[in-house]
Amino acid sequence: MRITRAIITAAGRKQRTLPLQTLIDRDGVQKSVLRIIVEEALRAGVEEICVVVCPGDETPYAEAAGDQAGRLHFVQQNAPLGYGHAVHCAKGFVNGEPFLHLVGDHLYVSRGAKSCAQQLVEVAQAESCAVSAVQASRERLLPYYGTVGGRRVPGHQDLYLIDNVIEKPTPTEAEQRLMVPGLRAGHYLCFFGMHVLTPLVMEILEKRVAEAGDAGGVNLSGALAELASRERYLALENQGWRYDVGVRYGLLAAQLALALSGKDHDEVLSQMLELLALRELNA
Amino acid sequence: MRITRAIITAAGRKQRTLPLQTLIDRDGVQKSVLRIIVEEALRAGVEEICVVVCPGDETPYAEAAGDQAGRLHFVQQNAPLGYGHAVHCAKGFVNGEPFLHLVGDHLYVSRGAKSCAQQLVEVAQAESCAVSAVQASRERLLPYYGTVGGRRVPGHQDLYLIDNVIEKPTPTEAEQRLMVPGLRAGHYLCFFGMHVLTPLVMEILEKRVAEAGDAGGVNLSGALAELASRERYLALENQGWRYDVGVRYGLLAAQLALALSGKDHDEVLSQMLELLALRELNA
Repeated sequence: MRITRAIITAAGRKQRTLPLQTLIDRDGVQKSVLRIIVEEALRAGVEEICVVVCPGDETPYAEAAGDQAGRLHFVQQNAPLGYGHAVHCAKGFVNGEPFLHLVGDHLYVSRGAKSCAQQLVEVAQAESCAVSAVQASRERLLPYYGTVGGRRVPGHQDLYLIDNVIEKPTPTEAEQRLMVPGLRAGHYLCFFGMHVLTPLVMEILEKRVAEAGDAGGVNLSGALAELASRERYLALENQGWRYDVGVRYGLLAAQLALALSGKDHDEVLSQMLELLALRELNA
Repeated sequence: MRITRAIITAAGRKQRTLPLQTLIDRDGVQKSVLRIIVEEALRAGVEEICVVVCPGDETPYAEAAGDQAGRLHFVQQNAPLGYGHAVHCAKGFVNGEPFLHLVGDHLYVSRGAKSCAQQLVEVAQAESCAVSAVQASRERLLPYYGTVGGRRVPGHQDLYLIDNVIEKPTPTEAEQRLMVPGLRAGHYLCFFGMHVLTPLVMEILEKRVAEAGDAGGVNLSGALAELASRERYLALENQGWRYDVGVRYGLLAAQLALALSGKDHDEVLSQMLELLALRELNA
């Protein structure tokens, strides 16, 4: 199995300018959020990327991708019918091949030299199956994420065989159906916003999108729960950091994290401390 | 003299997405950079605003202005012929009236409840003449700003009569021509990016734009130096903070400053400290 294509979903109606926001990446280069995500995919060996957008966003997004615009294909999601529906919009693009999937409102900072997407793609290619990046998260974060249940793959410290997926489970659901032996008490495996998925996912979504029709509401976690019951489907525990840039102060947190883990560490740290000193001591 | 119109210059070729960048303002509300600048002008009593843009930016900028889009007029600067040329593009809009002028790549945080633009407009209306906001700045900042020379207006702690303006003066030029009696040693009055200007400025620019023709390069400081020789022209020393969001990490600094001087102070401060602890102690 080789992963050459990626789907980035960026059709959220309330966040149409999010991919256009500018940050300075770990290497000290100013880039749009979209471009940082595109480069995360390219560094993982992907050659072509499909961006799922609201109609009309193709031109500004292509401009925001800069030199990488030539790698991008755009498909429109014409109505907000759900996250699973958005992924399914790119079915023709992936054309029966497995694919990397990233969301357009998250940025990733890995520990170490290998990017988060690179680690994920390598595992998926080695195991020849769908793999979702997950992070062991405290129970209080369950309302924000899709969460998986399963058991550790013998001989692997960070790999789990998924047997269940629930979108934003309650603590009770999680305790009953998503406990993973070996994790710290009160911790669950929550999605990290990054997946390698197989053609079966598109088939499952196809059926669900057709059934939902104009009512929409097709989520991805439901399709992934079905995937777990029909194919070998793994979770890779990721040690990096994820930043949801769509939440309040998400861009600020992402920018600080990128800067503090990159080449401008000293410059930004001293700028922060100067600002803090100025504000807090004169307040 | 009453100021009801403002010109915002935002036609910089390299920074076309800057007004679309999103920040959270002091009140905790998420807004584009353009909208924050527009609201700075409106709070100062301005009723209509002309934004000077690159051709094609009207639609995204109008969207970025949100509810305030109805207050905006757009004029195009068709070629990058200089900052003074950009201001002159809005000559028809101001129609012989005095006007407030803000730049599209700076954000302001005032000390106290009155905004920086409000303080400036009040002084200009009271004095019935052109007034530029300035800040006493160390000599090492001279390469970045237009700088004025003059003398304190008797009876006013923060008001100066301008007799000279030089764009980015050398230390020698500044020492010989821009010393202001009463300022701390090695300090000069540098522009703050905010002016109330009179119809004469447009006349002066008109002549300079015509003379320069397609060669361009018409700056504003030159016109303001001429203004100082022909009309009473004041500088108001501002105690607030200015953030150039067009420089590296400028958006980051502006966001931190807005957050730390606003209602989300505690939330952002603790987020910063948590991030610092996580990064710096685990580094």
